[in-house]
Amino acid sequence: MELPGTLNEAVTQLKRLPGIGERSAIRLALSILSWDQENIKNLSSSLSGLLDIKNCISCNALCDNEVCSLCNDPNRIDKPIMCVVESMSDLLAIENSGEFAGSYFVLSGVLNPLKGIGPDEIGVPNLCKAAINRKISNIVLAVNPSIEGDATCSYLNEVLPDGIIVDRIGFGVPMGGSLEYLDSMTISQALKNRKTL
Amino acid sequence: MELPGTLNEAVTQLKRLPGIGERSAIRLALSILSWDQENIKNLSSSLSGLLDIKNCISCNALCDNEVCSLCNDPNRIDKPIMCVVESMSDLLAIENSGEFAGSYFVLSGVLNPLKGIGPDEIGVPNLCKAAINRKISNIVLAVNPSIEGDATCSYLNEVLPDGIIVDRIGFGVPMGGSLEYLDSMTISQALKNRKTL
Repeated sequence: MELPGTLNEAVTQLKRLPGIGERSAIRLALSILSWDQENIKNLSSSLSGLLDIKNCISCNALCDNEVCSLCNDPNRIDKPIMCVVESMSDLLAIENSGEFAGSYFVLSGVLNPLKGIGPDEIGVPNLCKAAINRKISNIVLAVNPSIEGDATCSYLNEVLPDGIIVDRIGFGVPMGGSLEYLDSMTISQALKNRKTL
Repeated sequence: MELPGTLNEAVTQLKRLPGIGERSAIRLALSILSWDQENIKNLSSSLSGLLDIKNCISCNALCDNEVCSLCNDPNRIDKPIMCVVESMSDLLAIENSGEFAGSYFVLSGVLNPLKGIGPDEIGVPNLCKAAINRKISNIVLAVNPSIEGDATCSYLNEVLPDGIIVDRIGFGVPMGGSLEYLDSMTISQALKNRKTL
């Protein structure tokens, strides 16, 4: 049996979401159908509302206005330390840890010359400007460990203004991790990054 | 950090979906934000399009028009066998098996006196009418095994028109299942439903 056209259209669109296959999409669509009209309208309008979201002119994070709440917070923006991430979801992950109290800069991904993604595309000039404007003395590169991530960090270390200490987040055994199941690259990093007790 | 308002609203709405928690909702919303505008509009409008879906006047399945494609198909609707399911998703599961070639009737759930859901609420009168109109001689109750499902089957067996053979789908070990991991109720059913080879 073919799905009714309107249901099929919703399933086609929901399948575009990450981790949602044909069966999950049908399940989601049928579940939405069981909601009352008001809730269906709210879901639909909240998603089209995402079209109004902006990027902070100072740090490139997603926000409702010109400047995001973190860049408007003197307790954060006036600190001399800045964390550089490659996506908004990484910024949220760091914020959730509660460990970092400085300001952020969100790159638009990482360098990938094969795909034509260079420093301008990911926003390196704006990062340099922000570092100077905010009088940053320490930058923490919280870029994911990958070939492109590593290359991006090396490049940033070269082009960031002189006099700024550039750190990269530490690599090693994750909390709750088990040496037995970790890959050898991680164990090798954990041994290199050992700390005297 | 608080999420931007529009993003937060989308996350709140996405969290209403089954199996989607806070983290998944944020992941979905950020992923949608990376789409181009046209695709975001398509997703949003396809979901509000679900408001237009109807129930087939003959079998109560979801459809775009008055009558669904199965009830419009003489190869299906003229067969003397009808399958009764408790939801559209169960109908789709049976259609996917390719094993059933008759017509359907979709109940609006199962009987649940404690929640005030009686025969009229789940559409039993319409089921009886459909059975007579379609000159059905055999009804297969493909209702899930649960206390309410069992009670619904017993009730339907009593009220369905005389002269119609009422079957219930078979219970036993699922294909690929392992006796070792199955609950004792299923094994007990599998033993009762054994077949001579």
